[in-house]
Amino acid sequence: MMHFTKPVFLVDKFRAESNIDRMLAKAKRSSVVFRPHFKTHQSLEVGQLFSQKGITQITVSSVSMARFFAADGWQDITIAFPLNILEMDELNQLAKQVHLNVLVESTGVAHRLNVQAQAPMGVFIKIDTGYHRTGLLPKQTDEIDAILKILRTSGDLSFKGFLTHAGNTYHAKGKEEILEIKASAEAQLNSLKKKYIHEFPDLMLSYGDTPSCSLADDFPELDEIRPGNFVYYDVMQYHLGSCSLSDIAVALACPVVAVHPDRNELVVYGGGVHLSKEFIAADRGFQLFGYVVRLNDDGRWTDPIAGAYVSSLSQEHGIVRMPSEELKKWEPGDVLGILPVHSCMTADLMKGDTILLE
Amino acid sequence: MMHFTKPVFLVDKFRAESNIDRMLAKAKRSSVVFRPHFKTHQSLEVGQLFSQKGITQITVSSVSMARFFAADGWQDITIAFPLNILEMDELNQLAKQVHLNVLVESTGVAHRLNVQAQAPMGVFIKIDTGYHRTGLLPKQTDEIDAILKILRTSGDLSFKGFLTHAGNTYHAKGKEEILEIKASAEAQLNSLKKKYIHEFPDLMLSYGDTPSCSLADDFPELDEIRPGNFVYYDVMQYHLGSCSLSDIAVALACPVVAVHPDRNELVVYGGGVHLSKEFIAADRGFQLFGYVVRLNDDGRWTDPIAGAYVSSLSQEHGIVRMPSEELKKWEPGDVLGILPVHSCMTADLMKGDTILLE
Repeated sequence: MMHFTKPVFLVDKFRAESNIDRMLAKAKRSSVVFRPHFKTHQSLEVGQLFSQKGITQITVSSVSMARFFAADGWQDITIAFPLNILEMDELNQLAKQVHLNVLVESTGVAHRLNVQAQAPMGVFIKIDTGYHRTGLLPKQTDEIDAILKILRTSGDLSFKGFLTHAGNTYHAKGKEEILEIKASAEAQLNSLKKKYIHEFPDLMLSYGDTPSCSLADDFPELDEIRPGNFVYYDVMQYHLGSCSLSDIAVALACPVVAVHPDRNELVVYGGGVHLSKEFIAADRGFQLFGYVVRLNDDGRWTDPIAGAYVSSLSQEHGIVRMPSEELKKWEPGDVLGILPVHSCMTADLMKGDTILLE
Repeated sequence: MMHFTKPVFLVDKFRAESNIDRMLAKAKRSSVVFRPHFKTHQSLEVGQLFSQKGITQITVSSVSMARFFAADGWQDITIAFPLNILEMDELNQLAKQVHLNVLVESTGVAHRLNVQAQAPMGVFIKIDTGYHRTGLLPKQTDEIDAILKILRTSGDLSFKGFLTHAGNTYHAKGKEEILEIKASAEAQLNSLKKKYIHEFPDLMLSYGDTPSCSLADDFPELDEIRPGNFVYYDVMQYHLGSCSLSDIAVALACPVVAVHPDRNELVVYGGGVHLSKEFIAADRGFQLFGYVVRLNDDGRWTDPIAGAYVSSLSQEHGIVRMPSEELKKWEPGDVLGILPVHSCMTADLMKGDTILLE
């Protein structure tokens, strides 16, 4: 029987592997490269689950993360974050050890990268297909041409293609809108491909985001997909329709420390420093910071307790609301599980206290 | 000249010391024990700033944090979190080394604590004076009496008094409401003191929260104050009126990685895993995740850039909006500073990457 005394991040290996298998099969059916984003788990152990299935190419979101996975033997890494020119020393070191791809989206940075690069690097141009976080718009072909002019003459840099993260799917209302966003992104990327393929016959279209990669049947227009969150999923993905509740592969084990029957609440040891403060704005002003599950003796769980949810968080306290009939079953010293709203953030916070349930 | 290549949490020692001095002087004037909450900084170095000023009694919010500071020589620690009975082994170990105070709020936990305690511990009864996060209501005197009955006959446990955290000040509209909340809490605690002082002449009233401790002139009704956030302050405290902008002692240094003049935005390396996702809901649906400052060569900063703020965060990306005239001054490779909305959360995330600016 598992015994927890403080917040512990539980990863159900079986569920995580099923999530990987499903996405990998879909990528194979569509003949696209599957380059999962490892920012979600940031775990060498979970990385090995991918490795065991033959995956050799990965995505990360920082130079530090690239170094972390390179040190564990990963040899082909895309840093899907606008190149931080201040980290050129670390990037050059890495690029001497592994096959490294970086992202640029301005001639200024492309120029400085070209001047300072001391080892071969692949370069994707970051395209903004509607999320408007960062990247060049597809219509900014003057800027794209100027970047390509730098890359064309570079000794160390080679143009890899166009990359986007359709993060606007996270604001979508449902499956139809998510698939519309994906279709629009594909069309925009494809227009660029048509324009530049003759000069760069190997250029790739690389596409991210878990909602559309989960909901789409295939990726006929793309060359590479980079979903990350899908390995764990979470309550936000469930609300978007990307997964079922039983696909969610992670839960935070939290000791109950107080019970308040007068307001149908209990207090757990498990707060913003464990779960993160990410929430879903639910009906009538409620905020939802997680669903609640009963943990089995082996640490696993089934479906959430109906009507139970995390209603607020402070630094170490979590407030859980549940129906009075259910609340009666809990007392201080019990341990419950919380399905996080955003598993990437919770995994990051709990890096030191994670258990992979075999 | 300071040189940052990735997100670093900067602590201005002079500002932090000024904040400590001001609160310490106020506590002395009111003849209350000053037991600062160390959950805000979780830093041995910052702890030493308090130690150098003669402070010997501290508050923490977890057993792990108590162990961390005990190992650095702190000998008198209150764990201001409902006792987690599952950590009794660690608590017993700690209580053999340092003077430890714990919180109870139910007879069930008091009973189990009494059975399992193997070393002397002080016990506060946690009182809910209006925040409704946790604790007993002052009117629940039957439950208080039942807890006291257990403590009275205990060998290791000694009743210390009543403790509250008036966290409802964080939802207040301004100084008047914050001081009303404090006055109400004091009155409630005092009614308990009057009832129990004859049997427990040394019982203390212990009171927390930075907004009211910052805004009140004195604490005539209290015996101990436990503010924590005041050492750093942050944008939330500024909005509450607890501090001026120049009191904010921390900033997150963030490299600029992209500039988008078409929408008056730039992108920094610095996201939810650095700042936390805590925000202030500003006017017209805007969300504010931090103010923006220009860092001097020594890493320090003056007032925020007018009209500049962090408008959204993803895992590693921060989106900063600023007026176009100001935006023109920034390019990738520059480093700006972000004043966090909630410094406790940012400090927790940046524990490994903090610089105390001497």
